Amino acid sequence: MKALIVGGLSAVILAAGLAAQAQQPDIEDQIEFRQAGYKFMSWNMGKIKAQVIDGSVEYDPLQVQAAANAIAAISNSGMGALFSPGSSRAEMGEITALRPEFFQNLDEAGRLGRNFNVAANNLASEAASGDQARIRRAFGEVGQTCKACHDEFRFSRQ
Amino acid sequence: MKALIVGGLSAVILAAGLAAQAQQPDIEDQIEFRQAGYKFMSWNMGKIKAQVIDGSVEYDPLQVQAAANAIAAISNSGMGALFSPGSSRAEMGEITALRPEFFQNLDEAGRLGRNFNVAANNLASEAASGDQARIRRAFGEVGQTCKACHDEFRFSRQ
Repeated sequence: MKALIVGGLSAVILAAGLAAQAQQPDIEDQIEFRQAGYKFMSWNMGKIKAQVIDGSVEYDPLQVQAAANAIAAISNSGMGALFSPGSSRAEMGEITALRPEFFQNLDEAGRLGRNFNVAANNLASEAASGDQARIRRAFGEVGQTCKACHDEFRFSRQ
Repeated sequence: MKALIVGGLSAVILAAGLAAQAQQPDIEDQIEFRQAGYKFMSWNMGKIKAQVIDGSVEYDPLQVQAAANAIAAISNSGMGALFSPGSSRAEMGEITALRPEFFQNLDEAGRLGRNFNVAANNLASEAASGDQARIRRAFGEVGQTCKACHDEFRFSRQ
């Protein structure tokens, strides 16, 4: 996000703009940070899946809780700030899988993001209950909200 | 119809990806997941630093809390499982900065990891207090525990 230094801006607005710039990582970094968040969440989704969906790993309530808490906390950390205009594949190429349609449908992107956030926090609550049937349902809802956004706004990695 | 097929495919790919992680991820994946965790924590450390250390961004208690919660939850998520023997630079080359000494000093590595975990949870508690002086101190302690491990067990990226 480039600072806009335009004559007539008040000192307050200029200071606010510079502050926002100071906080906002550049676009390459935004892409790395957001991919890191999703990657780390996918590891934790995998652990929950193994324990409560596949049963390929014995269910450990504390591990599932910790995994769900990590997903929820990452989801709560304001990742929207990592999606500056100009950060789709149209501008940045293969380093990102973000479709340019994301920025033409910000209301829809926001809606999908909020759905994911609600589902992630619900999964954390259900994980704390230790009730596997409830965790399973909540996990499925998180997966649906991941997929909804991938389908609309992410190029396939394959 | 095409969209449905693509969507279905990506769901299969997503599920396959999660299935692959059911057991212990392979070493390349462990390296990617652990780097993702540290990368995402570094974004959140940067936000806290900007707001309570540098003051380059106005302090927003809820943002700092969310950032500290993400760091703590990632730290609590059992990242030790991502450090299988054979995952240092000695075996894996430049894709990882982990020094082979890590595996010759597992007690020390564990001690440093626990120190970090305690400091990260303390930072989350202090962030919830909203007291900037306390957050500043707790942030400094997290930084020290990061650095302690980097100094002993991480090759410099420079």
